[in-house]
Amino acid sequence: MTNKVELYDTTLRDGTQQEGISLSVEDKLAITERLDQLGIDVIEGGYAGANPKDDEYFQRVQSLDLKHAQIAAFGNTRRANVDAANDPTLKALLDTNAPVVTLVGKSSEYQVKDVLQTSLEENLAMIADSVTYLKEQGRRVFFDAEHFFDGFKMNAEYATQALRVAMDAGAERLILCDTNGGTLPSEVADIVKRIMEDLGDDAVIGIHSHNDTDTAVASAIAAVEAGAFQVQGCINGYGERTGNANMVSVIGNLNLKMGVEAISKEQLETLTEVSNFVSERVNRSPDQFQPFVGSSAFSHKGGLHAAATQKSAQAYQHIEPSLVGNSNDVVISELSGRGNIVHRIKEMGLADDLDDAAARQIVQHVKDQESKGFSYEGANASFDLVLRRALPNYEAPFELVDFMVVIENRRRSSFGTGWRKDGAEHPMLSEATVKVRVGEEIMHTAAEGDGPVGALDGALRKGLVDAYPELSAIRLTDYKVRVVNEGVGTGAAVRVVIESADGKDVWYTVGASTNILEASWLALTDSFEWWLFQNGVAGK
Amino acid sequence: MTNKVELYDTTLRDGTQQEGISLSVEDKLAITERLDQLGIDVIEGGYAGANPKDDEYFQRVQSLDLKHAQIAAFGNTRRANVDAANDPTLKALLDTNAPVVTLVGKSSEYQVKDVLQTSLEENLAMIADSVTYLKEQGRRVFFDAEHFFDGFKMNAEYATQALRVAMDAGAERLILCDTNGGTLPSEVADIVKRIMEDLGDDAVIGIHSHNDTDTAVASAIAAVEAGAFQVQGCINGYGERTGNANMVSVIGNLNLKMGVEAISKEQLETLTEVSNFVSERVNRSPDQFQPFVGSSAFSHKGGLHAAATQKSAQAYQHIEPSLVGNSNDVVISELSGRGNIVHRIKEMGLADDLDDAAARQIVQHVKDQESKGFSYEGANASFDLVLRRALPNYEAPFELVDFMVVIENRRRSSFGTGWRKDGAEHPMLSEATVKVRVGEEIMHTAAEGDGPVGALDGALRKGLVDAYPELSAIRLTDYKVRVVNEGVGTGAAVRVVIESADGKDVWYTVGASTNILEASWLALTDSFEWWLFQNGVAGK
Repeated sequence: MTNKVELYDTTLRDGTQQEGISLSVEDKLAITERLDQLGIDVIEGGYAGANPKDDEYFQRVQSLDLKHAQIAAFGNTRRANVDAANDPTLKALLDTNAPVVTLVGKSSEYQVKDVLQTSLEENLAMIADSVTYLKEQGRRVFFDAEHFFDGFKMNAEYATQALRVAMDAGAERLILCDTNGGTLPSEVADIVKRIMEDLGDDAVIGIHSHNDTDTAVASAIAAVEAGAFQVQGCINGYGERTGNANMVSVIGNLNLKMGVEAISKEQLETLTEVSNFVSERVNRSPDQFQPFVGSSAFSHKGGLHAAATQKSAQAYQHIEPSLVGNSNDVVISELSGRGNIVHRIKEMGLADDLDDAAARQIVQHVKDQESKGFSYEGANASFDLVLRRALPNYEAPFELVDFMVVIENRRRSSFGTGWRKDGAEHPMLSEATVKVRVGEEIMHTAAEGDGPVGALDGALRKGLVDAYPELSAIRLTDYKVRVVNEGVGTGAAVRVVIESADGKDVWYTVGASTNILEASWLALTDSFEWWLFQNGVAGK
Repeated sequence: MTNKVELYDTTLRDGTQQEGISLSVEDKLAITERLDQLGIDVIEGGYAGANPKDDEYFQRVQSLDLKHAQIAAFGNTRRANVDAANDPTLKALLDTNAPVVTLVGKSSEYQVKDVLQTSLEENLAMIADSVTYLKEQGRRVFFDAEHFFDGFKMNAEYATQALRVAMDAGAERLILCDTNGGTLPSEVADIVKRIMEDLGDDAVIGIHSHNDTDTAVASAIAAVEAGAFQVQGCINGYGERTGNANMVSVIGNLNLKMGVEAISKEQLETLTEVSNFVSERVNRSPDQFQPFVGSSAFSHKGGLHAAATQKSAQAYQHIEPSLVGNSNDVVISELSGRGNIVHRIKEMGLADDLDDAAARQIVQHVKDQESKGFSYEGANASFDLVLRRALPNYEAPFELVDFMVVIENRRRSSFGTGWRKDGAEHPMLSEATVKVRVGEEIMHTAAEGDGPVGALDGALRKGLVDAYPELSAIRLTDYKVRVVNEGVGTGAAVRVVIESADGKDVWYTVGASTNILEASWLALTDSFEWWLFQNGVAGK
């Protein structure tokens, strides 16, 4: 196994092939800077000449002050029966001015014949000519052998020949791509070994794996164990279909499990932050359960392990979470006790105001709340407010006086012409009135919404906006409801968890009640209240 | 490599250790039945004696008519310095009546000394005594060697000895657990091989891996490649922290990549459906990008591949998606396929009235409904009603005219003495009025409830009880809500699924709307309507 690995990130190209992911040029530039700081060696920025966005990216990225990373542009080998110097894709690749060009070409007999529909010889010429031409123009050239593993299984000789042709023409890297993601890690390792034996010491091998068999990270590291030098992947495992090898996990494994210093210790400590940053930029909720960096990656729910974890933290975590900038926030639940609450009090810097007696009272309060259906497990912001509200001088930034919600579904009135004239069959109306005290003032507002919670949200914002105009930054990004004491149907307590975001943070609040609207109201007001403290708008 | 693998599912035990997952007894029983149909060999149902829910599960699961699976109860080896026959955990394990008992015990020197705080010898005695005692009581015993890999790396001899002691006492399976998830697949394979050489042919090895290094599935299959017989995992990769090995992916790889017929071809075709079913039950959105079964697992966003895919579908998909019940369409759900609809029409005996043209219309209707946020996967009763309502002579047993709900939270009136005199701080009031047509009559009723859905339920029952007194047998036993198009906060569509029971049947209905009360109303009325047909009270 090599003791140095080259990290090649394709979040900006293959990552954006995943359904629902779209990045602006600004997003791409911001991610480029973060990947550079993280210590990524090569950043694949996009397709050359395929769309105006990528063209603009390649122009603008030249003025970034990157410390370490090189930018790669991605494109096909020349077309069949065309001179390399006249090929539009190769021209577009040169126009990017990217120092690295990653040429993707065929290495599978089936692909050449049935998809490309050209001869095996012409395909080899396409590879050789394209590499040679780009080298002559002063670029570093990497060769992505598309469908390599399937091609190798079908015709190993031809697949190997495609690599050899690229290498002989001057390609610095030969990347074996498992394009449809169907090859298992043990087979990847085996084929990498055979290729390295065949091609000898001059061949520098890379691996590009997809997660279709749920083993993309394993295939990437199996290739490294077998001698590959370059690993391609995407932050958070984004990428076409089920995604590419998760670069975050690859880095974690290389640095902390395999003794390869892929990035520095200091860079590794930013891994969680970079993962969250990219997830914000692609507009996806961070995956709570993501290995190494997820907010639940080091948490324990109790049962068998709760007691043991306190006895010896390392027993149930495979690494010290701070190594990757994560923490082992213990999940709050009735199974966890005073130790966790004291720990969080310290983290929040409230230890001077909340002594042991206060902590005991908080434990009791949390237990009472949990018996009513609250759960602070997935609601860090509401939990922080529980602690804050225990402070001797706590002052709420606002306070509920009243609310009322009316939801109507009126087909027609039994009397006269009906209350709505638009003739809609089942119009739904949701209207809320809210009275809140802010300082000495009582704000009494009303709003309609798509539903009752939207109406409450609207009316509450109207009531608070004069005192706290900054609140308009908050978006409610998810809303979950669950019945807590099962088996009682609509009479049971319901728990509402709201996810909120402001473009910078994501936080979770909880409410519980037998009344779904009261539960929603509690979670909603916690969200606003937490944000006001967190951002220094209220209290301190 | 073995050509038969035993599938041991722990979704109901380790799966529920993941943050945010909570299953009712009904959920657990329903999942048990689906896992049995899928072909899972052993289903770990829960902890013995740890909580009333699991105890109830183990009692009730005995009356399920399982075709294939055996139920396992999970619990610790006896305590230190206690006689096995007097140990409360072993007693609880026996009380479950589960045919398989999975004993978890220590095999790591560090864990024995520092966490268990007993001697190495006593730990071996705890294992041996517990296995022997449970065998004497007629149970099959599996031994989960907790922290096995870490233990082996620290003291291979002791770790192996713990396994040997269990085997000699009669444990039928020795499961190597990577409890903190920190071991990479190549190391798992290596250690499995060494253990099998050490213990000889009588040892039947299992693997229990976690996803902390993003390689749980790879570790599971690496162990099988090395000779392990049993694989433990959870549906959809649920489980403590970052989750367990994803059983869905494990099955896909075993059956389609490794030539092991872990389940039958027909069972494999239900894999997507089972994955979605379990995700519905744990109230999580199905993972769109999940290998094999995700709705985007075989979709192509374009770029390089779009044209190629049309030239040759197999080029960019590693398996034919229908093998696992998935498709490379824009998948809505498997129920929206015409084949399933025709199948269900036949099952319901409606084939004389619903021809192919009707089936096509139903497909379209289901797709329209799904685009609004409905999902019939977890709502069999609502799906049956979709078919029934397509009948030419369908007559609804009742019909909504209007409803209105008022929810108030009044501290005091600004005028006069206030509207309530009991001095309650924050009384919540939920009142509904409902107008329904039953036959030619319009019933106009009102009721209060614990919350708005309870109030609607109460008012609707009052309106229907004269015509259908039998309805009083129906109880609403669970209520689940989820935001469907996430990222839009309170403006997003919500899906409500209601579970109802009458002491004989349990059925599920769905409603979706941007308004949670409209969604609830739709699910509620479906529940009553379905029951009236099912019990021959309405229609035929």
